[in-house]
Amino acid sequence: MPEKIEQEVLEANKRFYDALESLDIDQMGSIWLHESWVKCVHPGWGPISGWENVRQSWEAIFQNTQAIRVRLTGQSIRMIGDFAWVSCIENIANRLDASLDAAEAFTTNLFLRRDNRWWIILHHSSLLPAIKPFSEITIQ
Amino acid sequence: MPEKIEQEVLEANKRFYDALESLDIDQMGSIWLHESWVKCVHPGWGPISGWENVRQSWEAIFQNTQAIRVRLTGQSIRMIGDFAWVSCIENIANRLDASLDAAEAFTTNLFLRRDNRWWIILHHSSLLPAIKPFSEITIQ
Repeated sequence: MPEKIEQEVLEANKRFYDALESLDIDQMGSIWLHESWVKCVHPGWGPISGWENVRQSWEAIFQNTQAIRVRLTGQSIRMIGDFAWVSCIENIANRLDASLDAAEAFTTNLFLRRDNRWWIILHHSSLLPAIKPFSEITIQ
Repeated sequence: MPEKIEQEVLEANKRFYDALESLDIDQMGSIWLHESWVKCVHPGWGPISGWENVRQSWEAIFQNTQAIRVRLTGQSIRMIGDFAWVSCIENIANRLDASLDAAEAFTTNLFLRRDNRWWIILHHSSLLPAIKPFSEITIQ
């Protein structure tokens, strides 16, 4: 049973990143709990509270992105009753016209089980310190 | 009963910041769950996993700090069974010799109740975007 639940949570986490890559606000809306107390922190942004504000932030991001791909590493998961905590590192590729950005972020995603489904209630993502460019690395 | 539990969690959150301000590693150690899966992300650092590594990171911070004061704003709390999620904004003043830094961070703290006590299991703190200096603010 714990393995089955873990699988459900990992699928919910995957649905979040599928929605992000889809740039489809309805898909993103279908996995968030629509409550006034959910929270979202995009890398480099201030905190956003409440589904309506969170939805607007995703719309703004989707309108300013042509393509985004996220590869996850270091995914770990803890479940406590109807609550689940997923930590992961996002390796992000982001394109707008000729501009292509790469970034790495540490993310805390929290999920709540309600009506037999897992809903995201917190997405807190923060950029990891950049790796030094080669020119700054001293070869001993 | 929910109010009593909320009070317990807020006290646990306060104990965490009291330990941070104390610069006392034993005090910090007394509120973390000593498990291999606890996690800590200091602002601008990569993620640290497991109590032993987390302890070492606090020791390094305490050794390089003469005084730190944290004022919390925007504290919000959700409890689900034996699990609690606290979000807050940390207004941080940090002193080392003649150097004084001010910073603002958004923080996700997660707590687990075990043996009738609340233990911190995640501290994920990320700097908020700096406020523009006056010279950059346009008066309309």
